Amino acid sequence: MRLTTFQTPQGATTYGAVTDRGLVDLGARLGTRHPDLKSLIDDDATVLASEHLDKVDYAASDVTWLPVIPNPGKIICVGLNYEDHRAETGNSVSAQPAVFLRVPESQTGHDSPLLRPRESDTLDYEAEVAVVIGRSGRRIAPDTAWRHVAGLSCYNDGSVREFQRHTHQYTPGKNFPRTGAFGPWMVTMDEIPADSALTLSCRLNGKIMQQATTNEMIFSIPRIISYVSTFTTLAPGDVIATGTPGGVGARRSPQVFMRPGDTVEVEIDRIGVLRNTISDD
Amino acid sequence: MRLTTFQTPQGATTYGAVTDRGLVDLGARLGTRHPDLKSLIDDDATVLASEHLDKVDYAASDVTWLPVIPNPGKIICVGLNYEDHRAETGNSVSAQPAVFLRVPESQTGHDSPLLRPRESDTLDYEAEVAVVIGRSGRRIAPDTAWRHVAGLSCYNDGSVREFQRHTHQYTPGKNFPRTGAFGPWMVTMDEIPADSALTLSCRLNGKIMQQATTNEMIFSIPRIISYVSTFTTLAPGDVIATGTPGGVGARRSPQVFMRPGDTVEVEIDRIGVLRNTISDD
Repeated sequence: MRLTTFQTPQGATTYGAVTDRGLVDLGARLGTRHPDLKSLIDDDATVLASEHLDKVDYAASDVTWLPVIPNPGKIICVGLNYEDHRAETGNSVSAQPAVFLRVPESQTGHDSPLLRPRESDTLDYEAEVAVVIGRSGRRIAPDTAWRHVAGLSCYNDGSVREFQRHTHQYTPGKNFPRTGAFGPWMVTMDEIPADSALTLSCRLNGKIMQQATTNEMIFSIPRIISYVSTFTTLAPGDVIATGTPGGVGARRSPQVFMRPGDTVEVEIDRIGVLRNTISDD
Repeated sequence: MRLTTFQTPQGATTYGAVTDRGLVDLGARLGTRHPDLKSLIDDDATVLASEHLDKVDYAASDVTWLPVIPNPGKIICVGLNYEDHRAETGNSVSAQPAVFLRVPESQTGHDSPLLRPRESDTLDYEAEVAVVIGRSGRRIAPDTAWRHVAGLSCYNDGSVREFQRHTHQYTPGKNFPRTGAFGPWMVTMDEIPADSALTLSCRLNGKIMQQATTNEMIFSIPRIISYVSTFTTLAPGDVIATGTPGGVGARRSPQVFMRPGDTVEVEIDRIGVLRNTISDD
C-alpha cells in the first residue's frame, strides 16, 4: 500500500492511500482516532486503511504532496554509506555509520520546489532510500530490525555543500528549509520483500547522475537500525535516510550544483519517482 | 523570573514559576490557552505569569524537575566554542561554529539521574549555557539577536565519548536517552542584562572540573543565533546549548568519566545550580 500526507484542493492537511485511481482521504475517515499518518502507522496502518479503499476522493493531479511524514520525531541521516561515494569524498572507512540529524522543517514534498538558499549556490542532490519506522524499539538486533519498519520511500537529502563544510559537523548544510524532499509516498513492507536489492537513481534534468542498488550499501538497513537504536529509541514515524551513492554534484569535475528551473528526480524500484524543481528562496 | 516544567506530587506534568517560597503551578492557571511552557513563552511569558504569583502551590522539594523545555522543536548544540576546550581537543580553528543536534528524548531534568549507557563507560560532562528562544526568526542579525531570547538556563551536554568518535559526526555520542540535563529553570532576560559575562562551572563530586566566563566564548550568543538562523528558522522553545569550556574528562590525564553514584553540578551566575547523579541504564 502507498501511504502519504497531502493537502486537499481546499487547503486542508490530511493523509491517505494512493491508488491507481487516485487518493483516498484516510484522514477524513480515521482522523478522530489517528490525527496524522505517524499515528496511523503506530497502529496497524495497512489493516486499518484497507477497509477504506473503495472510494477515491481526489485525483493525484489535484492534491499538493507533503513530506510523507511531515512531523517525524526525528530524521536520522546516514552519511558515506556507499563505497563509491565514500571514496569520492576522500573520507576513511569507519566501523560504524556516520550519523547526523535533520529537523522536520527542512523537508518538502513531491512536486514542490527545493529551495536554493540566498546564502550559497552549492545546493546538491543526494538520492536515498528512506526507512519509515513503524514500531518502537531500543537495542534492536539486526535480525529483527525489519519488523520495526513500516515502509520505504524516496528521499532527496538536499545539501548546501558550503555550509556542510564550514566545520567537520554536517548539520548546517543539511538543514536549510525545504531542502530535503520526501515522497511521493511510502510503500508498506507487505509489498517489498525484506532485503530486496532496490535500484535507486538520481536524474538531474533527465540525465542520470547517480545509480546504485541497495545491496551496495556499506551498512545494510538492518545494521543501521541496530546501530541507531543503541543510542536512541526509535519510534513510529521516525525516518532514517540511509545514505547516497557516488555521483554527487560537488565531487564531479566540473562541479554541478542545482539551479533554479532544474528538475531533480529520485527513482527507486518498487517505490516510485520523487520529482522536484529548484527555486530560489 | 524563573520558569520551568515539572511533575506534581500527584504525577501530572505541568509548568510554573519558581519563587523563593516554592513553585506556582502556571499550567493549572493558564493551561487552557498555553498547554506547555513553550507555548507560554511564545506569548509573553513574564507578563502573563506575573499576574499569578501570589499563591505558591508546591514546595520545591515536593516536585520532580523535568527538562525546562521537554519538547523543544529542536536542540542545537555548539561544539568547540571556548578556546581552551578547542585546544585540548586538537581541533583546528574554524570561521563558523560547529553545530550538531540533540533529540528531546536525550534530555533529563534537575535532580534526576543522568544515565550511563550499557554500551560504554565513557560518559562525560559538559557545562554549558542554554539559550531558550522566545521569538521566531530567520536570518537574525547579531545586533538584534537578544530580542529573540526568552531566557537562559544551565545545560549539561552529557556525551558518550566512545560513540561521539565512531566517526567525524558527533550525533551518536550526544543522543543517548537522559544524558543531557537541562535546568533547574530558565531565568528570563529581564533579570540578566544582555551580554553579561556569566561565570559557568562544572563540579564532579564537589571538585571543580571546568570554570570559565561566557566572554571567553569564541562565538558569542548573538553570533551563534545569527549563524544558526541562516540555515534554520528559530522558533519559541528552541534550545541552543552554547558550548563547553576546557576541562572535560576525556581530555584529562588520566581520563575521568562519570560513574554510578557520582554527583555532577553545573553552576552559572544569576541562574543557579543544575545537579544530577549518575545511574547505570
